[in-house]
Amino acid sequence: MAKIPTVFSLRHCFVVSLALNFSLILRMMYEREQGCKGAFWKKQSESSMAEVDSNHLMHKSHLAVSSSSPLVNSTRTDHPKVAERVINLDHGDPIMYEHFWRQMGDKTTIIIPGWQSMSYFSDLSSICWFLEPEFAKEVVRLHNVVGNAVTEGRHVVVGTGSSQLFLAALYALSPPDAAEPISVLSAAPYYSSYPVMTDYQKSGLYKWAGEAESFDKEGPYIELVTSPNNPDGYVRHSVVNRTRGFLVHDLAYYWPQYTPISSPANNDLTLFTVSKSTGHAGMRIGWALVKDKEVARKMTKFIELNTIGVSKDSQLRAAKVLKAVSDSCEEEGSSQEAESFFKYSYNIMEHRWKQLRVAVQRSGMFSLPTFSPAFCTFFSQVLEPHPAFVWLKCEGDIEDCERFLRGHKILTRSGVQFGVDPKYVRVSMLDTDENFIHFIDRLSAIHP
Amino acid sequence: MAKIPTVFSLRHCFVVSLALNFSLILRMMYEREQGCKGAFWKKQSESSMAEVDSNHLMHKSHLAVSSSSPLVNSTRTDHPKVAERVINLDHGDPIMYEHFWRQMGDKTTIIIPGWQSMSYFSDLSSICWFLEPEFAKEVVRLHNVVGNAVTEGRHVVVGTGSSQLFLAALYALSPPDAAEPISVLSAAPYYSSYPVMTDYQKSGLYKWAGEAESFDKEGPYIELVTSPNNPDGYVRHSVVNRTRGFLVHDLAYYWPQYTPISSPANNDLTLFTVSKSTGHAGMRIGWALVKDKEVARKMTKFIELNTIGVSKDSQLRAAKVLKAVSDSCEEEGSSQEAESFFKYSYNIMEHRWKQLRVAVQRSGMFSLPTFSPAFCTFFSQVLEPHPAFVWLKCEGDIEDCERFLRGHKILTRSGVQFGVDPKYVRVSMLDTDENFIHFIDRLSAIHP
Repeated sequence: MAKIPTVFSLRHCFVVSLALNFSLILRMMYEREQGCKGAFWKKQSESSMAEVDSNHLMHKSHLAVSSSSPLVNSTRTDHPKVAERVINLDHGDPIMYEHFWRQMGDKTTIIIPGWQSMSYFSDLSSICWFLEPEFAKEVVRLHNVVGNAVTEGRHVVVGTGSSQLFLAALYALSPPDAAEPISVLSAAPYYSSYPVMTDYQKSGLYKWAGEAESFDKEGPYIELVTSPNNPDGYVRHSVVNRTRGFLVHDLAYYWPQYTPISSPANNDLTLFTVSKSTGHAGMRIGWALVKDKEVARKMTKFIELNTIGVSKDSQLRAAKVLKAVSDSCEEEGSSQEAESFFKYSYNIMEHRWKQLRVAVQRSGMFSLPTFSPAFCTFFSQVLEPHPAFVWLKCEGDIEDCERFLRGHKILTRSGVQFGVDPKYVRVSMLDTDENFIHFIDRLSAIHP
Repeated sequence: MAKIPTVFSLRHCFVVSLALNFSLILRMMYEREQGCKGAFWKKQSESSMAEVDSNHLMHKSHLAVSSSSPLVNSTRTDHPKVAERVINLDHGDPIMYEHFWRQMGDKTTIIIPGWQSMSYFSDLSSICWFLEPEFAKEVVRLHNVVGNAVTEGRHVVVGTGSSQLFLAALYALSPPDAAEPISVLSAAPYYSSYPVMTDYQKSGLYKWAGEAESFDKEGPYIELVTSPNNPDGYVRHSVVNRTRGFLVHDLAYYWPQYTPISSPANNDLTLFTVSKSTGHAGMRIGWALVKDKEVARKMTKFIELNTIGVSKDSQLRAAKVLKAVSDSCEEEGSSQEAESFFKYSYNIMEHRWKQLRVAVQRSGMFSLPTFSPAFCTFFSQVLEPHPAFVWLKCEGDIEDCERFLRGHKILTRSGVQFGVDPKYVRVSMLDTDENFIHFIDRLSAIHP
């Protein structure tokens, strides 16, 4: 060891050295925090929310209050203010998945140099000229790995989230020169955004016609089939079954963590999104599997006129994320430690639903939907569904369940917005562990 | 200091402590390396095309043929087939800028970990809740550096390209309960996509009413003012000037490389896009500067219902690119070598316009618009405009200039699409050096 000048005793050096240790440790902690900036300080403004709807802005103040750590393994703080905190489960921000992607480390880190992806165009050989080939490849691969959709003989159309693809589908399926707009309908309870998304432009091509079961108008129509259904999680099929009807299948939740995969979906037009499958809502990437070439062409034309294509950066990032999901499924068998994305997320959903059913039983004031188990071809066993949302019913004489829960500082979405009874509310199951635990605690504590 | 058990001498502790320092330093170095790992991955092919319009797909085959090296300094191949090659200048893919961004190296490389930007939400304190604060900051900074727009008292609304913001503006400015749709108009020659973008949804809120100068209808209207104008490059002002009129200013080309910056634009609603300012069309990022809070809110609502926000990945990347542009402007003064993005692109545009004027003179079959020089506050000197498109006129007895040039294997966009005479065509000036040189050669060789 180097000779130490006598002016510094060994003890001096030891103290200095300890001080240096301390500062280095502090520095590392600081740098890590910087690395997680997006997750920590940004969460203050992002708040713990899920899927957006027309009235989310009204909740701003609440939302800001309900922000919390995004880490799945975060423990609840026993701060005296906790009981006062408003928990917003009206929306469905799927940040529950963030922990898994942190564990993946650099595997899904994307690096894009400033000179890349500058052109409007991605693939002139595809009907969807702005579709990144790498993204299309990973979409097909993931469906083959999961077995939730037939991709043979389908055209992939990428969209800025599945919302844009929903509008593109309405545009593509509407008769261009009809005397009146085509009727758009869905069985209640239906996704609360369908009516407003269909009608906000006052289009002469298509018009919201409401609840599908009571639809008795003659002529062509577009029926929206969401399966498993948002809000109630049940498996859905077309209910109108008349000639001259077009079907749009929204399968945003047809993934193994939410519902048993019964067979590959084999529809004319099916919508998927990364928001609910992998949890990357901020990418705004969805895709459609389209059988008819002309429909795929018209959907592409809609997106061309609407946004001249879809972010290449997000398509490239989505490709990397989907690849990681497929890889995790294929690697799972190979080693004991490896856990697929779906196994990971299934386990969380199963655990949360268990906790929820106990809380509802303790309370005695609510009821939940019951699901019959089914064989899942992905997990190769009989499993129960664990939907991304809870379709909760207030029992007894509570007429307005949303208002009742708001009184207990739990924000949910009223059944009225889904075309049904205010005795029902939709509650997100995809929020942070911290918010979910608070929700469970509060629910258990509500008694008749 | 705490007493140390005799089994460990102070010297032992010191050695251990030094070892700990060493390991901590190594760990920090390792973690930093991880942070910027593999900044040179990824490659993908891009076609050399420009701005998209409703009929670009018809040119697919041609476009495929005309694709070429995107490097600005690429030299033309003397392949015998060159004379046979179709040169597509119908669109306006701004890939001319790629070379600059390559020169910048890692400065604008973005790295996004898989767990980042997962939420739908970016900033709940902003009216535009999906606006990334970093992007908003760099937008304001760039306008202040360039001096081309007033940002004080304006709300920034981000969009999936300025196309989405154009539609959002129509939605926001249309009276919601009017008996008939509001008239949308623009002075001819107007951007060829305005009519189809306005009418493709057959909206009951707004309707294309055609050429602004001949507009004589009573009641409210929306006038689109594009300045400098696409296609002809002239500075534009409102032409209708009636009460109950709303103005939307499309200033996509109000940047120093295209036109002298006379003063900061000070409008109610102004649209910009990265596609034409920095050349990053593939990002699909545009922004609006909006004076009225309620209009900004309605535009945000449109984007919420249309695509539930805008890609966070592209917003973060755009922030980095805009920052690099502002930095390049501020560094220019500091050193001799440093060249700002606008100086670089101005020089290319000036050179191309010189070559074009010579070619047109040689040919004797065409005429070009003439522009009067003006003082540019950015470059602090009197300069000539160098528009992103050439508004070319066929002289003599050629009635259909687009068809005539197609006969010479040059694809352009006919004046008819811009609401005027087929004697005119719009030609992109933003293509690769290789395609531009071929275009110049062919034009020079066409004689009466």
